[in-house]
Amino acid sequence: MISEHAIVSPKSSIGKGTHIWHWVQVREGAVIGAECVLAKGVYIDADVQIGDRVKIQNNASLFHGVTIEDGVFIGPHACFTNDKVPRAINADGTLKGAEDWKVSKTLVRKGASIGANATILPGITIGEHAMVGAGSVVTKDVEAYAKVVGNPARKIGVMPREHC
Amino acid sequence: MISEHAIVSPKSSIGKGTHIWHWVQVREGAVIGAECVLAKGVYIDADVQIGDRVKIQNNASLFHGVTIEDGVFIGPHACFTNDKVPRAINADGTLKGAEDWKVSKTLVRKGASIGANATILPGITIGEHAMVGAGSVVTKDVEAYAKVVGNPARKIGVMPREHC
Amino acid sequence: MISEHAIVSPKSSIGKGTHIWHWVQVREGAVIGAECVLAKGVYIDADVQIGDRVKIQNNASLFHGVTIEDGVFIGPHACFTNDKVPRAINADGTLKGAEDWKVSKTLVRKGASIGANATILPGITIGEHAMVGAGSVVTKDVEAYAKVVGNPARKIGVMPREHC
Repeated sequence: MISEHAIVSPKSSIGKGTHIWHWVQVREGAVIGAECVLAKGVYIDADVQIGDRVKIQNNASLFHGVTIEDGVFIGPHACFTNDKVPRAINADGTLKGAEDWKVSKTLVRKGASIGANATILPGITIGEHAMVGAGSVVTKDVEAYAKVVGNPARKIGVMPREHC
Repeated sequence: MISEHAIVSPKSSIGKGTHIWHWVQVREGAVIGAECVLAKGVYIDADVQIGDRVKIQNNASLFHGVTIEDGVFIGPHACFTNDKVPRAINADGTLKGAEDWKVSKTLVRKGASIGANATILPGITIGEHAMVGAGSVVTKDVEAYAKVVGNPARKIGVMPREHC
Repeated sequence: MISEHAIVSPKSSIGKGTHIWHWVQVREGAVIGAECVLAKGVYIDADVQIGDRVKIQNNASLFHGVTIEDGVFIGPHACFTNDKVPRAINADGTLKGAEDWKVSKTLVRKGASIGANATILPGITIGEHAMVGAGSVVTKDVEAYAKVVGNPARKIGVMPREHC
């Protein structure tokens, strides 16, 4: 079920039973699995890969270079990134194009959760069933089952297995 | 006045003189008072209760379980939450439904202000005329008239009564 | 090129070669230079001034009082502010109008970059080619070429000239 107010590229792939809500944009080459939810205003950039049963909340933005495995939760307003030194212009003053920067890859492993309004720096891996607290700024890899919070995010505990 | 680009459930209630701008969504059972402003892209989830003369800025998301009293200011990009351990899937791997999680209630008391891009953890009460600084992550209750800032938010002062 | 899903005031000015994507709003009196990119959901408030070759990413909100010089990068979800003591209501309980608050001015100088999900407090100047890290909360002026990160943002280094 796709909202009539969403813009989904015909060159993307959307799995069975996935719901896409109002003002969502899914770009060309994106692959989204089955039984996912993309809530209001979510942005899925070109070629982003998303597994099955992934829940992505309001306004979250996933940029080129991001891969999300099965069963991941991405909280509202969460923001991924893909450029370690973002600049609008090249040294010669011309506007940067798609060829003028190096994309860093980001991977969120199976069953992990990203809290509301979290920011994920480029080139990060977030381990299986890890929990990133709301409002955190993740600047380095997160171990499987770890709970991290803060700016920068630091490990404060381990998620109990029954929650996963 | 409601923008033709907003989506407002016929099962919600909107008070007299309230303005609703472009790409706002108001869901079923939400009750919004009089003379409120809901700016571009605001999201009001099912059954959220909002008083009179409340100003909610761009892209703020208020989820099920949130109650906002009269005269509250909610800054742009502010994000509420309602789930202490958000997960996309149950232990058996099935997608979580509305029955599979416990909603925490959040209350913002009369005249309080929530700064831009603030994140409010679940189950919090923010006292009357309190001021939450921009970019703060609120992890525990905020006293009336307190000013809090940071991640996690800490009390740094008391608001003078003349501002309220 | 302006998306048919954007709302651009006829009383704004848009430079040659500027791209405006879906669900962007540009208000009256805003002046946007040439070869800019305004990505999905960006908000440009009344009278905001933006130079040439400025790249503004998804959902960023720029409010009245903000000036952006040439070649600036503004990351996704970045949020500007213009009111040091935001309140929805006046001391007499009436809703605040445009006359009831003092706008603070914010200036982002040539070639600077604002990271994803950063929050910029009112009345700040960010110097030429400065770099504000993702998720930072900027509470005071940033020197030219400085790199700042954190909440509140602190200087952690200087940008090499070759990146600018």
